[in-house]
Amino acid sequence: MSFTQKTRTLTHEGALAVLNAALKRASETQAPQCIAVVDTGANLLAFVRMDQAKLVSIDSAIAKAITAATSGKATGQGSAEQEIKMAVVTRGRVTNIRGGVPLLVEGVVVGGIGVGSGTLDQDVDCAEAGAAALI
Amino acid sequence: MSFTQKTRTLTHEGALAVLNAALKRASETQAPQCIAVVDTGANLLAFVRMDQAKLVSIDSAIAKAITAATSGKATGQGSAEQEIKMAVVTRGRVTNIRGGVPLLVEGVVVGGIGVGSGTLDQDVDCAEAGAAALI
Amino acid sequence: MSFTQKTRTLTHEGALAVLNAALKRASETQAPQCIAVVDTGANLLAFVRMDQAKLVSIDSAIAKAITAATSGKATGQGSAEQEIKMAVVTRGRVTNIRGGVPLLVEGVVVGGIGVGSGTLDQDVDCAEAGAAALI
Amino acid sequence: MSFTQKTRTLTHEGALAVLNAALKRASETQAPQCIAVVDTGANLLAFVRMDQAKLVSIDSAIAKAITAATSGKATGQGSAEQEIKMAVVTRGRVTNIRGGVPLLVEGVVVGGIGVGSGTLDQDVDCAEAGAAALI
Repeated sequence: MSFTQKTRTLTHEGALAVLNAALKRASETQAPQCIAVVDTGANLLAFVRMDQAKLVSIDSAIAKAITAATSGKATGQGSAEQEIKMAVVTRGRVTNIRGGVPLLVEGVVVGGIGVGSGTLDQDVDCAEAGAAALI
Repeated sequence: MSFTQKTRTLTHEGALAVLNAALKRASETQAPQCIAVVDTGANLLAFVRMDQAKLVSIDSAIAKAITAATSGKATGQGSAEQEIKMAVVTRGRVTNIRGGVPLLVEGVVVGGIGVGSGTLDQDVDCAEAGAAALI
Repeated sequence: MSFTQKTRTLTHEGALAVLNAALKRASETQAPQCIAVVDTGANLLAFVRMDQAKLVSIDSAIAKAITAATSGKATGQGSAEQEIKMAVVTRGRVTNIRGGVPLLVEGVVVGGIGVGSGTLDQDVDCAEAGAAALI
Repeated sequence: MSFTQKTRTLTHEGALAVLNAALKRASETQAPQCIAVVDTGANLLAFVRMDQAKLVSIDSAIAKAITAATSGKATGQGSAEQEIKMAVVTRGRVTNIRGGVPLLVEGVVVGGIGVGSGTLDQDVDCAEAGAAALI
């Protein structure tokens, strides 16, 4: 019987690399964003809210990051009804809104990035630019 | 690098002018309302619940005001599915129910007014009467 | 009657300058920290949790930043009894734990930084190093 | 057996008279305040946050008003330990911080006013000025 297993954990330097890559992308595309990075324990690692980004996207960016980190999949892919039920039962910690992308290192999920305030396409584009910093 | 930017903030005199204009309109149309005014930081500035207005509209009036103040747009214009997701992820702080109107001074959003308890048309009419007090 | 007043708002570049100065200080002193920066509306602007920093300090760092930003004073200076009452009544958004410092630009409060996970002295030292980035 | 009893209910005109009297007092004494009026059902009737009043006093003003309205007594008179327990068990809806005063009409409690952001003495003084509007 094995009592423990080895896992990979995202460092804060890794989280900031993701955050800064997403921030750079949002600045280049002139789409102000809220950007959140969380670990696989669903706990916040790094965050920035850009000038002119929507206040209410603080919550959605974090929820997108948590959803991607804990499911290992980009947000917005499930059935709408099932996902809304999950959003309600988790009191908003989980969301199906697009803009959440898992963070992978050598094929292992180590966290998630969530981006909100732009159009859904802008959010996804920015989140993917952030996730690419780890590759 | 710039550390700060200049902005406009709604005063409490401005907020009360909005509140009183909406209250006057609701009285004239005999549609009792809950009326809320918030700043762009989503924090309450002024509120009144009129006789016979619905208790549950306390929450909806505040959420409508927050949504309008932070999006800069009247509530009720987005896709229903997307807006329900935003309502859940913000734990009810955001709503897509009509009756929220941004407050503008010289073209700058300085807050929002939210009105609830009447019909949706009455709510919008009353909120717009409030917002007009700043012009 | 005046409807608006002019104010200064902290930019995300300002918030990141504060965050990075605090992060540098925490690295130099080998005291891993949670570091939060908020605006005067009590809304999160920037955040990082360093490797080995305590998870529970995510909440305390944010609360310290909110308390300093909205009071204009460093945390931990009031009477213990009064401050515990304020913590309860604000549902934990306000705290009297040391490590929150207001952010000032030309004498005007534009936000707050909150640091948690080290000793109280380390938290204060790190928060002050962050705040100094704006001067 | 009697199935119902007659009660007195504070109107919104009564609530606004209380609010405005407190607002006038706060302006005269140059102590910016958050002022809340609630009914005996613990539900918000009227509210204003003055310029420069503390954001975190939104919550404390409402809690003070609720505490006074539902206990029929001014806040801050019980044993500290018991009151902190009540504050925690009500999740911050009840508070023992001074500045809450019951609203009475012909000896009957019809609501409460809560004031916060000044010194405790300023808060009580302002709340009493508001309550006096009903006499």
